[in-house]
Amino acid sequence: MTLTFGVIGVGRIGQLHINGLRNNKDVRIKWVSDLYCDKLSEWIAKAGIENKTKDHRDIINDPEVDAIIICSPTDTHVELIKAAAAKGKHIFCEKPISLSLEEAEEAVEAVKQANVKLQMGFNRRFDKNFKQLHSILTKKELGKIQTLRITSRDPEPPPIEYIKHSGGLFMDMTIHDFDMARYLMQSEIVEVYATGSALVNPEIAAYDDIDTALITLKFENGSIAMIENCRRSVYGYDQRIEILGDHGAIDVGNEQSSTLNYHRIDGIRRDNPPHFFLERYSDAYKVEMDDFINALQNDTDVICSIEDGYKAQQIALKCKESLISNQPKRI
Amino acid sequence: MTLTFGVIGVGRIGQLHINGLRNNKDVRIKWVSDLYCDKLSEWIAKAGIENKTKDHRDIINDPEVDAIIICSPTDTHVELIKAAAAKGKHIFCEKPISLSLEEAEEAVEAVKQANVKLQMGFNRRFDKNFKQLHSILTKKELGKIQTLRITSRDPEPPPIEYIKHSGGLFMDMTIHDFDMARYLMQSEIVEVYATGSALVNPEIAAYDDIDTALITLKFENGSIAMIENCRRSVYGYDQRIEILGDHGAIDVGNEQSSTLNYHRIDGIRRDNPPHFFLERYSDAYKVEMDDFINALQNDTDVICSIEDGYKAQQIALKCKESLISNQPKRI
Amino acid sequence: MTLTFGVIGVGRIGQLHINGLRNNKDVRIKWVSDLYCDKLSEWIAKAGIENKTKDHRDIINDPEVDAIIICSPTDTHVELIKAAAAKGKHIFCEKPISLSLEEAEEAVEAVKQANVKLQMGFNRRFDKNFKQLHSILTKKELGKIQTLRITSRDPEPPPIEYIKHSGGLFMDMTIHDFDMARYLMQSEIVEVYATGSALVNPEIAAYDDIDTALITLKFENGSIAMIENCRRSVYGYDQRIEILGDHGAIDVGNEQSSTLNYHRIDGIRRDNPPHFFLERYSDAYKVEMDDFINALQNDTDVICSIEDGYKAQQIALKCKESLISNQPKRI
Amino acid sequence: MTLTFGVIGVGRIGQLHINGLRNNKDVRIKWVSDLYCDKLSEWIAKAGIENKTKDHRDIINDPEVDAIIICSPTDTHVELIKAAAAKGKHIFCEKPISLSLEEAEEAVEAVKQANVKLQMGFNRRFDKNFKQLHSILTKKELGKIQTLRITSRDPEPPPIEYIKHSGGLFMDMTIHDFDMARYLMQSEIVEVYATGSALVNPEIAAYDDIDTALITLKFENGSIAMIENCRRSVYGYDQRIEILGDHGAIDVGNEQSSTLNYHRIDGIRRDNPPHFFLERYSDAYKVEMDDFINALQNDTDVICSIEDGYKAQQIALKCKESLISNQPKRI
Repeated sequence: MTLTFGVIGVGRIGQLHINGLRNNKDVRIKWVSDLYCDKLSEWIAKAGIENKTKDHRDIINDPEVDAIIICSPTDTHVELIKAAAAKGKHIFCEKPISLSLEEAEEAVEAVKQANVKLQMGFNRRFDKNFKQLHSILTKKELGKIQTLRITSRDPEPPPIEYIKHSGGLFMDMTIHDFDMARYLMQSEIVEVYATGSALVNPEIAAYDDIDTALITLKFENGSIAMIENCRRSVYGYDQRIEILGDHGAIDVGNEQSSTLNYHRIDGIRRDNPPHFFLERYSDAYKVEMDDFINALQNDTDVICSIEDGYKAQQIALKCKESLISNQPKRI
Repeated sequence: MTLTFGVIGVGRIGQLHINGLRNNKDVRIKWVSDLYCDKLSEWIAKAGIENKTKDHRDIINDPEVDAIIICSPTDTHVELIKAAAAKGKHIFCEKPISLSLEEAEEAVEAVKQANVKLQMGFNRRFDKNFKQLHSILTKKELGKIQTLRITSRDPEPPPIEYIKHSGGLFMDMTIHDFDMARYLMQSEIVEVYATGSALVNPEIAAYDDIDTALITLKFENGSIAMIENCRRSVYGYDQRIEILGDHGAIDVGNEQSSTLNYHRIDGIRRDNPPHFFLERYSDAYKVEMDDFINALQNDTDVICSIEDGYKAQQIALKCKESLISNQPKRI
Repeated sequence: MTLTFGVIGVGRIGQLHINGLRNNKDVRIKWVSDLYCDKLSEWIAKAGIENKTKDHRDIINDPEVDAIIICSPTDTHVELIKAAAAKGKHIFCEKPISLSLEEAEEAVEAVKQANVKLQMGFNRRFDKNFKQLHSILTKKELGKIQTLRITSRDPEPPPIEYIKHSGGLFMDMTIHDFDMARYLMQSEIVEVYATGSALVNPEIAAYDDIDTALITLKFENGSIAMIENCRRSVYGYDQRIEILGDHGAIDVGNEQSSTLNYHRIDGIRRDNPPHFFLERYSDAYKVEMDDFINALQNDTDVICSIEDGYKAQQIALKCKESLISNQPKRI
Repeated sequence: MTLTFGVIGVGRIGQLHINGLRNNKDVRIKWVSDLYCDKLSEWIAKAGIENKTKDHRDIINDPEVDAIIICSPTDTHVELIKAAAAKGKHIFCEKPISLSLEEAEEAVEAVKQANVKLQMGFNRRFDKNFKQLHSILTKKELGKIQTLRITSRDPEPPPIEYIKHSGGLFMDMTIHDFDMARYLMQSEIVEVYATGSALVNPEIAAYDDIDTALITLKFENGSIAMIENCRRSVYGYDQRIEILGDHGAIDVGNEQSSTLNYHRIDGIRRDNPPHFFLERYSDAYKVEMDDFINALQNDTDVICSIEDGYKAQQIALKCKESLISNQPKRI
């Protein structure tokens, strides 16, 4: 069964998904929409997309379209979800659902009412290493878990312009780690305590944001966790997880860019990990799309639902409250 | 410019290349030929190949065909190369050219006369790690080289039936290492001394073959090298290289299957390397084909020529002589 | 100059120091005192100690004694420090000074008044790896520091009987990490937030104690830090530190018990780290004593003073307050 | 039982052993002898040695002396062994026994006749990592062995003056590896093939010596092995072993100087291995002496006998023959 897709938003992440889907024989990308689709017309043509539009309604109203891929700015997500759901379209949506929890609730409700599938773009769930860890934890191989630690550092801070509209570190960056924490622990987060500051770029503070954070999480099952974020690790994208349980510990290290070790007079050197998310998670982006297609073709549950998106968003907002008040916050 | 290919031989390696080329928009696989193409008709249909035949001449005589991919048994290679070259077809040929050096010379001559491109399937040259090492060596970053060491172990021995027609360990397995040694050292091998026996499966000895070998190489530039082969390393495909020079050493380790480390009461465990060549070199197989296509499209030299294939074959034969006589052999 | 020492307390750590000092030609251990010295008489004789007593005053009043090594239970430390200081003896004291901050202040004051040297037994400062990290940080090679992370896990929980009198996890175990955090960051801790529970052994909760903790620290210089403790990591004593700064990160991993890697069908295995503190810090215990002797011989400052002991104790008590109130606490 | 020792030769290795034995309560070093003992008198006094002499006969004739430690130049070994054995003294002797096999035979015979113990200074047998590997192999945990590989590289070549009297690379450096190969494989070497040249310092060739070698060994049990030596690896002393068997492989890596990993913009760096043998084998030197003392006290066999010394020397001489003739040589 070939599925007909429309992609809304042809920025970096939209292009990534289009490239991943181009050669997929199960998918026909019939449409893309983007406000700047004129500027992008050469790229779109090369990608072999049949139609382009500035108005996403052209896509949502097209009865041939089975599903839409939402890669547009966050403030458009809820409206798009509601409109697409109303037309019975399935949805793949980049994170976060929204910056507002009330709006997110409306989206959750709309999807539920329309009984369409919505998969959130928490790509890290689809990384082979984290999947393997998830599988070990599902089998309880480590016994009861005491602690979880997630390290998530970007190689370099985004431009201030991006920071302004990002929703803040927790909503923009840590949201992936909140989802990962829930996914791995398979228990809900009941309390958060967040601390952090603008230690890399003090200018960020002017926009009520931070670039470095340490977040403590408590889970329903009693386990505790720590997330560390920083907007800059000069040696590359640092994506590690450690978990400690009754029967041992597992650490998931960074991928290596090469297997070379240089032995020189001043020490032994190996290459840094893949530079950023496009390199580190290139396979995961493909797998998440394959899984979405699979869920549509076989009418099965998506691996990462809009409720998962809602939970992660809720935790991000509580962390912001915690940071401002310097108090732990219940969820 | 779209290239029209015909693939001769649809066994494991033929299927691998077809799968790699299927979604390549620069290539049309017009034909496959295989003696057993009836049995394979379902696979061929699924792969979207237009035509199939039992007679490779259908492909070689088709004026639309730009290039052929030779994946048939070794004893057919020379005949196919000569026939294709005579028709002006470009050629990608799996190793080795032949088990006979005289025949191989004929093939070299035919390619030269016809002025077609022929790329040998020494896939390891296209592995990103070994390419990086090659590039460092080309830049002379280590200074003069003292020693090179290549470890190349298969996870398990092939069936005796395969062994019988393989041409022996040196021609079947070490030939990759001979090519790698020449590629990295950028100097010719002038002497070999080979030792080995059937230490894994003594039955192999009945077919005048061995499964474990240590080979010493001397290069024109004075450097010395050692290759170790074994048909069985129960922990997976072991593919490592070390090089020592004036300014230090580089070792290229195995790829890791995952980044997990399990810390348990009985020690710290990580996953074995990728199981065998299909997993280990999956990217390299794509890159070698991309490079072949590129050479055809831009009329540039192939990275791995029929002369390289001839040299590796010659060394393999000298190693066999050395093993039998227990004497070093000049080349 | 030979120094004359008396050792008070001949338990596990007292014996460790005696063994380390036995062959030191700069030191004569004239006395040991222990309430159970009769039971220990064989051990003491074998160690070649000249005199033993049940009454530490015999040591403190001996005019020949230059310094005392306090290895007796925590509740005796302050009295011993005050008595020894009053007699002008130098002091090496195991951590913590006391469970009470008021008493600790008295000890600090006594040492100051008497102008004797007191070195706290924060042995980890003397580990070669952490010293190397300290030296790099002193030279500001990483630039400004964003985050510090200390992982400190014991291989197995102590008996409940020990827990009862330990002063709790923060005072007994984390106190080393508080000292390490101050030592490395070279900035004072201004706020703590501690969370934790009895996740390994729920019985511990009956004694108002925990066995697993995550502690967030804020420093005067703006950096933030996280300490993780657990009373059990079945794979051995886990002692790691990570630090992230402007110019990169450094992680200090566990020591390895051997350099063997076993490659088997079920994965690659290496040995666990050294089992516990006696194995892990055997060299550090020697170095700390050498440094103490050196400070006495050359009349230089000790590397780890009673004020350092006081600070670590103060932080431990604030963490306990934080844990009980579930609130961050200023120091 | 206190043993009375005399040390003959107070150069680098003699001083090393004296330092190791100084604080050993089971040993009294009554004498040292050295032609240059006047120049060394300050060092000898500081070491607390009672008597010094230029004439080793003073030691060998002293009835109080239980054992002698031979650390003098190789050309004195046989004479010293014979004289000491005649007087019933036990002997610890640095490698090699001699440069001449006939002389070595005389020494073996003298020791046998006198029924004294002689331990060869093959210190690497006493390294904890190689001992662990030996123990695994003794238990046949890997099943039958296919290949063994020993990498042994010095950080820098010795002065030409040293080279001249060293007996050549095989006798001076590889001899340790020959002993290790026999010790681990627990099977005799039956054939060698050696190749090498002066690739680091061409001047060495003038003294009929080489600085880089690859040596192939065949064992009685059918296994094959390779030794690689180089007089220079700028990143430090490289001492690694790999072994492949039916049930897997084991590699013994280099010790690490520290556990720090530096993550910087240009890659991840860790410290080089310990610089040279004094650092790398400092523990092994102590253990070998403890084992020697133990053998004397309990009248047990030494772990490394004069026969082991003889075998290693014989192999070294055969390698030299092989190198010169470019032919494999039977033993």
